[in-house]
Amino acid sequence: MTGKEKTRRSDCPINFSLELFGDRWTLLVIRDLVFNGKKHFREILASTEKISTNILADRLKRLEENGIISRQTAPDSGREVIYRLTEKGSDLIPILLEMTRWGAKYDKHTGAPASFIKLIEAERERLTEELKSGDFNMEGNED
Amino acid sequence: MTGKEKTRRSDCPINFSLELFGDRWTLLVIRDLVFNGKKHFREILASTEKISTNILADRLKRLEENGIISRQTAPDSGREVIYRLTEKGSDLIPILLEMTRWGAKYDKHTGAPASFIKLIEAERERLTEELKSGDFNMEGNED
Repeated sequence: MTGKEKTRRSDCPINFSLELFGDRWTLLVIRDLVFNGKKHFREILASTEKISTNILADRLKRLEENGIISRQTAPDSGREVIYRLTEKGSDLIPILLEMTRWGAKYDKHTGAPASFIKLIEAERERLTEELKSGDFNMEGNED
Repeated sequence: MTGKEKTRRSDCPINFSLELFGDRWTLLVIRDLVFNGKKHFREILASTEKISTNILADRLKRLEENGIISRQTAPDSGREVIYRLTEKGSDLIPILLEMTRWGAKYDKHTGAPASFIKLIEAERERLTEELKSGDFNMEGNED
């Protein structure tokens, strides 16, 4: 890649999205921040899909550079780094909810709780706001 | 890869989705079928992002194997192959619409018509049905 700005493949908004998170890992990192209350590198690293240290570091860096997450040092936790979604990042939640619905509908062996899928369908707006605010807890929404 | 079934990374529905279309190209192919009325290999190949022949062939094969698209031979067009979305494929439309909204909101240089973004926000259900039925024409919805 030469030059400061990456070459865009097109001006299509779907392409814009894919250039940022069109891979097998990035949205799993966002998922961990949104649904699973994860904030630390080691917590995301421990997720079932077993992301590698270098891929996780790369994705967090890209997400921060693109304004999707912010990186803070928590004063009360031994200066450990905390990752949070920005507003731009929180605005990805509707995409994640639609992917959840689709995946749960077509995967015979899905681990998605039926009650959560119903919640997406019946109360999408409220759920989105709750997820954005960080008040949502997946634990209370499992079957 | 050994064995008939691929190894799943987890039972998460978002992961299920990403295992199928977590790459930079697959959803662009779906986009072409949904929004741009494309049906033929050569039409998709001609899109702005310049997908290569071998990647397009690979993605169409995977999409067909996974029941997202069907492959037909049109009797009235010299036996040319036509690709169409199945119901499982049409159910990806809400994901594409949310990606469109997000991309249009955060890309300063977006090519998305403002009128189309308004349509997604105001009439999501009707638009989704129209897109599923194949009656939608992007041409009539540009600025």
